Amino acid sequence: MKYYVYIAIERKEAILDPQGKAIEHALDSLGFKEIENTRVGKLMRLTINAGSPEAAREIAESASAKLLANPIMETFSVIRVSETPVLSTVEPEIA
Amino acid sequence: MKYYVYIAIERKEAILDPQGKAIEHALDSLGFKEIENTRVGKLMRLTINAGSPEAAREIAESASAKLLANPIMETFSVIRVSETPVLSTVEPEIA
Repeated sequence: MKYYVYIAIERKEAILDPQGKAIEHALDSLGFKEIENTRVGKLMRLTINAGSPEAAREIAESASAKLLANPIMETFSVIRVSETPVLSTVEPEIA
Repeated sequence: MKYYVYIAIERKEAILDPQGKAIEHALDSLGFKEIENTRVGKLMRLTINAGSPEAAREIAESASAKLLANPIMETFSVIRVSETPVLSTVEPEIA
């Protein structure tokens, strides 16, 4: 079975994010005064052949720990395991 | 109220993703034979002052359309609107 696994990689809060700051200023210039702070991370989508969604998730976590994320500066989280590749149909979780 | 809004920005499927390809080869060299394909996108976290989560989401969508995403090459989706900044506590959606 083929699973699409989305992994979010974010810089730790203590690490400066110049790209985020630049976007913050640009948004401010465009009049988005409600937006206080912006941070930029990476989003990876892996297509994984696995027997179950749990197995796909484990492979993705192992790949994140071994290659994708830098544990000194970044944190990673598997945010979606799905049989369809499309993220845009997901309704945002409001929490 | 302060909301943390996560936006995923992905390249459209037809657009080449050399960074994703490089990661794919690196994962293959590390022995992750189950991982078939890798694509890399951006993840933005905006901190927005708004009266409701719905209002925060609208501001984020407007900012994405006006500045953050390139509509020719990219698609964006608001994936989470939350009062807490942490994504890593979210259990992955298995669909």
